[in-house]
Amino acid sequence: MKNQLGQIKEWIDGHQAFAVLSHIRPDGDAYGTSIALALVLRALGKEVVVYNQDGLTRNYLFLPGKELVQKTPATPPPESTGLIAVDTSTLERLGATFTAWGRPPGLNIDHHPGNPGYGTINLIDGDSPASSQVVYELIEALGLPCPPEAAFNLYIGLMTDTGSFRFRQTTARTFEVASALVTRGADPAAAAQSCFQSSSAQRFQLQSEVLASSQFVLGNRVAYYRLTSEMYQRTGAQADEVENFLELLQAVSTIEVAFMLEEIAGGGTRVSLRSRGRVDVNAIAAKFGGGGHRLAAGIRSTFPIDRLEADLLREIEAALQPFPV
Amino acid sequence: MKNQLGQIKEWIDGHQAFAVLSHIRPDGDAYGTSIALALVLRALGKEVVVYNQDGLTRNYLFLPGKELVQKTPATPPPESTGLIAVDTSTLERLGATFTAWGRPPGLNIDHHPGNPGYGTINLIDGDSPASSQVVYELIEALGLPCPPEAAFNLYIGLMTDTGSFRFRQTTARTFEVASALVTRGADPAAAAQSCFQSSSAQRFQLQSEVLASSQFVLGNRVAYYRLTSEMYQRTGAQADEVENFLELLQAVSTIEVAFMLEEIAGGGTRVSLRSRGRVDVNAIAAKFGGGGHRLAAGIRSTFPIDRLEADLLREIEAALQPFPV
Repeated sequence: MKNQLGQIKEWIDGHQAFAVLSHIRPDGDAYGTSIALALVLRALGKEVVVYNQDGLTRNYLFLPGKELVQKTPATPPPESTGLIAVDTSTLERLGATFTAWGRPPGLNIDHHPGNPGYGTINLIDGDSPASSQVVYELIEALGLPCPPEAAFNLYIGLMTDTGSFRFRQTTARTFEVASALVTRGADPAAAAQSCFQSSSAQRFQLQSEVLASSQFVLGNRVAYYRLTSEMYQRTGAQADEVENFLELLQAVSTIEVAFMLEEIAGGGTRVSLRSRGRVDVNAIAAKFGGGGHRLAAGIRSTFPIDRLEADLLREIEAALQPFPV
Repeated sequence: MKNQLGQIKEWIDGHQAFAVLSHIRPDGDAYGTSIALALVLRALGKEVVVYNQDGLTRNYLFLPGKELVQKTPATPPPESTGLIAVDTSTLERLGATFTAWGRPPGLNIDHHPGNPGYGTINLIDGDSPASSQVVYELIEALGLPCPPEAAFNLYIGLMTDTGSFRFRQTTARTFEVASALVTRGADPAAAAQSCFQSSSAQRFQLQSEVLASSQFVLGNRVAYYRLTSEMYQRTGAQADEVENFLELLQAVSTIEVAFMLEEIAGGGTRVSLRSRGRVDVNAIAAKFGGGGHRLAAGIRSTFPIDRLEADLLREIEAALQPFPV
């Protein structure tokens, strides 16, 4: 570890320009960590850009340093530019435009346990609840500068990836890091307001329809909903603002598995699955070519939504068999 | 402050038996703080009971140490029993059964800025986000024992009263306290699951009806809903499980004020008001005999629900005048 930190320091010192990349369908930890790292490197006098295949999505326009984020360009930067991947479990998830560059990242920083270490140098802490915590540890260990805007971005990553400090892997150290970030200038209430009080009336309408149409089945042990193109059209909500409805289903104490099915424009179905703890939804997703973690997994399938719904319910029922009510 | 701590230590040392009391309509901070303090005093070899006018409500049955909680009895304990009030802004909110004892608490620990100091000794920190944080500071300052079950109860108070570390008054110190509580044995994910994933299917049904019937008015700057006896009856939900629906309304970025009106069985109306920041809902509540904080306030009125709805909307509209859209 100490060796590795030395290696990272040397690698940073050896470059003047950097591009920081994160995964497709970016979330708060992807943006927060990549922008924060860019701000830290800028404070060291480096030139830095932040690339993401999807650019900057509407719901993260509040991030300080957002102007650093660009869509990953087709033309790679010069060889002398150091490439850093953050929060991205596989090379593929950095996006097709990036992989077409045919150049692996020099530094790969992540908290996903399955990350195979596709970088030249790899800093992966699978026990950490967020990549922003991994980056904060690096900042502390190397004594790097951490401007208030970087602290705020890291706080956003930590807060969103822990579900406001509610998920497993939230440890005493996570709270220590949160405390340090607040001391360095992150405002917890402002962060929460930006992330959790910034949705549209259209999203509220869609949420209302989702709740009204949610199905509670198998003795209220499983709950799910469907998102159809028709629901988007009727409510005017956008696909990038529909995270977290599953949380509302998971709030019911009897629910072991909650999932949602979404029609993909052009055919096929996207699924998100969540488990309370006993059922391994990663194993269920794997049967349909999907994957993720034990408690949270996803599927992209060519099956139409009705077919997948029926098949999934059968698999979930089988997975519930070993567990008494 | 140091003097006061010495006074508290002396007062604790001077008693062998204690009753810890908290406010009517108890929440996570009321229960968490009172049970935790009882467990701390027990660890010191004291005899302790926890009294609440409402006893222990269904949704807090998961708290370790819950067996200490009893409904406040009509007969007061002997004079030698030390009375401690926690998290309770006024003597009245300790409940009619307690006030009938005609004996003020020897120790009054709270974080509500308006607490007038009705105890013999008063430890009130109006900047603290939760009474559990005030009690934790006391534990540290006096070097009191803090068993894991006490740490868990304090964590519940801290987590619930800060809305999962999202509300104003959540500071670097709040996260330090959370970290210390986790080190002492509190499990953040278990705490979150107990509080946020333990509701009933009936509550889900009521929530669904609330969202579907919510009104967005005054250019989507105000949102509100009504809870009627009929809605409770139809869904089978209980009055003690309907907190937090306002959060869902506040999630919409344009909402400056969110409120709910609830019919009181036997007549009258109860109101909860929340502000995003610019409107002082305490001032609005005060016009109807209610009160609270700038960002969160309540009213109990003899007005019927329709009358109060109309009057409130008028007052809120006036309060919004100074603020541009």
